[in-house]
Amino acid sequence: MGLISETADARRLRLDALSRPDSLLLTDLYQLNMMQAYFDRGMMEPAVFELFIRKLPDRRGFFLAAGLEQAADFLEAMRLTEEERAWAESSGRFSRAFLDWLSELRFDGDLHAIPEGTVVFPDEPFLRVTAPLPVAQLVESRLLATLQAQIVVASKAARIVLAAEGRTVVDFGLRRANGTEAGLLAARAAYVAGCAGTATVLAEPAFGIPIFGTMAHSFVQAHDDEMDAFRHYARSRPDQTTLLIDTYDTEGAAEKVVALARELAAEGITIRGVRIDSGDLADHARKVRKILDDGGLTDALIFASGGLDEDRIARMVGEGAPIDGFGVGSSLVTSTDAPTLDTAYKLQEYAGLARRKQSEGKATWPGRKQVWRRYGDDGRMVGDLLTLDSEPGPDGAEALVRPVIENGRRIEGRPGLEDARARAADQLKRLPEPLARLGTERYPVEIGGPLEDLAREVDRRIAAGRQG
Amino acid sequence: MGLISETADARRLRLDALSRPDSLLLTDLYQLNMMQAYFDRGMMEPAVFELFIRKLPDRRGFFLAAGLEQAADFLEAMRLTEEERAWAESSGRFSRAFLDWLSELRFDGDLHAIPEGTVVFPDEPFLRVTAPLPVAQLVESRLLATLQAQIVVASKAARIVLAAEGRTVVDFGLRRANGTEAGLLAARAAYVAGCAGTATVLAEPAFGIPIFGTMAHSFVQAHDDEMDAFRHYARSRPDQTTLLIDTYDTEGAAEKVVALARELAAEGITIRGVRIDSGDLADHARKVRKILDDGGLTDALIFASGGLDEDRIARMVGEGAPIDGFGVGSSLVTSTDAPTLDTAYKLQEYAGLARRKQSEGKATWPGRKQVWRRYGDDGRMVGDLLTLDSEPGPDGAEALVRPVIENGRRIEGRPGLEDARARAADQLKRLPEPLARLGTERYPVEIGGPLEDLAREVDRRIAAGRQG
Repeated sequence: MGLISETADARRLRLDALSRPDSLLLTDLYQLNMMQAYFDRGMMEPAVFELFIRKLPDRRGFFLAAGLEQAADFLEAMRLTEEERAWAESSGRFSRAFLDWLSELRFDGDLHAIPEGTVVFPDEPFLRVTAPLPVAQLVESRLLATLQAQIVVASKAARIVLAAEGRTVVDFGLRRANGTEAGLLAARAAYVAGCAGTATVLAEPAFGIPIFGTMAHSFVQAHDDEMDAFRHYARSRPDQTTLLIDTYDTEGAAEKVVALARELAAEGITIRGVRIDSGDLADHARKVRKILDDGGLTDALIFASGGLDEDRIARMVGEGAPIDGFGVGSSLVTSTDAPTLDTAYKLQEYAGLARRKQSEGKATWPGRKQVWRRYGDDGRMVGDLLTLDSEPGPDGAEALVRPVIENGRRIEGRPGLEDARARAADQLKRLPEPLARLGTERYPVEIGGPLEDLAREVDRRIAAGRQG
Repeated sequence: MGLISETADARRLRLDALSRPDSLLLTDLYQLNMMQAYFDRGMMEPAVFELFIRKLPDRRGFFLAAGLEQAADFLEAMRLTEEERAWAESSGRFSRAFLDWLSELRFDGDLHAIPEGTVVFPDEPFLRVTAPLPVAQLVESRLLATLQAQIVVASKAARIVLAAEGRTVVDFGLRRANGTEAGLLAARAAYVAGCAGTATVLAEPAFGIPIFGTMAHSFVQAHDDEMDAFRHYARSRPDQTTLLIDTYDTEGAAEKVVALARELAAEGITIRGVRIDSGDLADHARKVRKILDDGGLTDALIFASGGLDEDRIARMVGEGAPIDGFGVGSSLVTSTDAPTLDTAYKLQEYAGLARRKQSEGKATWPGRKQVWRRYGDDGRMVGDLLTLDSEPGPDGAEALVRPVIENGRRIEGRPGLEDARARAADQLKRLPEPLARLGTERYPVEIGGPLEDLAREVDRRIAAGRQG
C-alpha cells in the first residue's frame, strides 16, 4: 500500500503532542489534501456543513447534546504554530502559497448548534459550520472527536441517572477512560446529564464540578488491622468519612463501623457513610443497613460501586435496595453497550447551492436546517420537525438550532455548564414516557415538505451533472 | 448524598484543563484523601503496586501491551504546580504540611513493566510501581487511564491486522475517538499492533508514524461534476492520487478514473488507487478491479473503508475480495466489542510484607511477581508461569517484566516505538495457532508453588489480624 501512504522521513517536530488544544494538525490528512486542492482552484466560497448522528444504537431511544463548549473553544483558538508550519514545509506535501495562507488562518465563520443538555435524535443537525470551504472542511475531524467524547458519555449518563430515580450518581470513571482527556471530559458530560459529580479532582478547578472521594482497598490492606485503617482515615478526613467496608468481610466491617462511631463520637467525628464495592450489592446493602440502624447510625449513607450500569441500578432501585448513591465507572465513560456514535459531518451547501450525499445507505438531507420541537399539554415532547432554516416553524414549537459564533466571535451571554445541566434536567423530565423508561420506541422526527422538495431538486441537478 | 460530596465553592483555577500532561490533579479524589491520611500517620514506607487485567472479554484470547512510554513520561514529569497548590489550599481539604510535601514531590521510585508490543494475559502484571506508599497510590488513576487508552486499541488492532493477513490496515479513527488525545494515542497503539499508519496528521510529527489520506465525499459534492473533482484532486496531489469513487455510483466513477488516467498520463500524473466507502465492499471491489484492469490500470490499488472490523475484514479476505488495504475507524479506536478493560492496580507489598485483596471475586496474588514465557520448538508460545520476582525461572523461559525506571530515572537504551512494533509483529507470529486465528481457547498461565504458598501465608496473617 506504499502508493497511498504519504510517509515522509522529514525531520520531526519535538512537540508535546498531547498538550496542544489549538493544534490544526489534530486532523485527518485528507482534510489538508483537499484544502490544498481547494486552494489551488480558488474554491474558497462559503460552505455549510452540518453534524448529525445517522442512527440510534440498538438499545437507545435518544442522545443528549454535550461538548459544544469545547468545540467552540477549539474554533476560537485554532491556528497553525511556527513549529507546525516548519513540519508541514519539511514534509514536502504542500505548496508554500497554501502554507502562507494556512499560517494566517483563523476561524471567522459562523457556528450554530443545539444547546448542550438538549435531547437529540438521529438526522437532527446539532452543529452547523458556515465558513469558506477549506476552513469548514479542516475542522471536521476535531469537531467530531470533541463532540463524540461528550455526547457518548452524556447519553449514557442520562440513562444511568434516569435508572437511579433521584438517587445520587457519581462518575468514578477516570481510570476506565481512554486516556486522561477522555476521563476529564467524561466528568463534564456526566455532570451535564445529571450526575452529582465526579471522583476526578481536576474537574473541580477546571469546570467547577463537585468532587467525591472515599478510600481504596489498598488503604485497608496497608494497615495490619481493618479497624486501624478506619480509625486513621476518620481522623484525617473528619468532615467526610466514608469507609470502604468490603475488603475482607462486608458485614463484619459494618459492625466495626458501629463500634468506631461510638469511639469517635467523643472526638466529635461522625461517620458519614460506607461504600460497598463487591459481591451482591443489594443483599449486602440490606444487611449493612440493618447493622448500621441497630447501631444507631441511621443517618449513615450507603454508597455502592463496582461494575454498575443502568440495568443493574434499575434492578436494585426496583427491589428497594437501601442504597443512597451509586459510583459508576467503565459503563459510563466508555458507554459499554454503544461506545461509538455514527456521526456524520456533511456538506449541505456550497457557493449558494444545496448539496447532498447519495452513497448507498448514507444519503443526507441537503441545505441549512432547523429543528422544531413540539411539546404536549403535559409538557412532554411529542415530535420534532426538520425544516429548512429559512422556513417559519410550527406555532409554539421550540427552535433548537441557535447561533453560537458569528463571524468568528462568540455570541455574548452564552450558556454555561450549569445552564447545560439545568436544561438536561428539564429535557429528561419532558421525554415521552416510553423513552423516560429507557424504551426504544421511535420518537417522531418529520421532514418538512420544502426540505423534501429541495432534496428532489438536488437529486435532479446531480443526475443532470452526471450525464453532462 | 451531600455527606459524601466534597464540593467546595473555593475559588477556581483558570487553567487549561486539557493541556496539563504532568498534572497531579488528574487523579481520583480518594487518592488525595488516602495520601493525607498516610502522611498524617507517617506511613511512607515503600509499597509495591502491580497493574494487571482481571479477565478477557468474551470474544478475546489475548491482550497487547502498549502505552508504557506515555505512562513512564508521566511519572518523570509529574508535579504539583503553584496554581494547583493554590487551588488545593483554597479547597480547605488538606493540611499545609501535607501540601508542602506534595509540592516537593517527584517520582523517585522504580517502574518495572512488560515491554510494549508483548502479548499479555489476565493476571499478568504488566506494570509494577515501587515507591513510598502515598506516591505509589497517587499515580494509580493516571497510569490506568493512560495504559487503558492504548492497550484497548492495540489489542483490537492486533485482531484486525491478523484478520487482514498481510493487507494494509490504516487507522481512520480520530473522528470516532473519545476526544483528540484518545484519537492520537489510538494512532500510536494501532501502529504498535501492526497497522501501516494512520490518517491522523499529528501522529507523524509527534511519533513518526506514517500518515495516509485520500479525499472525502464532500470534495466530490463541492464540484458540480465528479470528473472535475477527480481531475482537480489529481493535479493538486499528483504524487498520491487516491480517488474516492462511491459518492454517486461506484462503478460509473471507476470508469471515469480509467478515462482520467489516460487524460492525465500526458501530464505525467498516475492514479495510484481508489477508495470505496459504502455498499457491499467486496462486490464493488470485484467490479471495480475488472474495470480498472480492463482500462489498463492493473497497478491501481483498491482501498476499502466504512464500518469495518476484524469479522468483516476476515470475511472479505476469505472470499478473496481484490482489496489491497482497509481503513478502520470506530471499531478500532473504541474497540466496539470490548471498549473497556477490567484493569486493577493492587497493593502487593507494604513495609516489606506481602499483601492481598480478598474481596469476593476480586482476590489477587500477593508480592512482587515475574512472568516467564515458554516457547515451543516451532517458536510459538506454549504457556506462561507466574512466580515471585525473587524466584529463578524455568530454563529457556523469557522473563517478561523488566526495569524501566530506577530511582526515578529512565533506564538507558529503552525501546522506542519501532522496537515496540517489531516486538508486536514477532509476538503475534508466535501466538498459539488457535489464538492467531482469533479463537478464545484459554492460554495456560500457571501459578508457581512459592507464590501459592505466599498467598496462603498472607491469608493466615489477615485471619489472625481480624481476630486480634
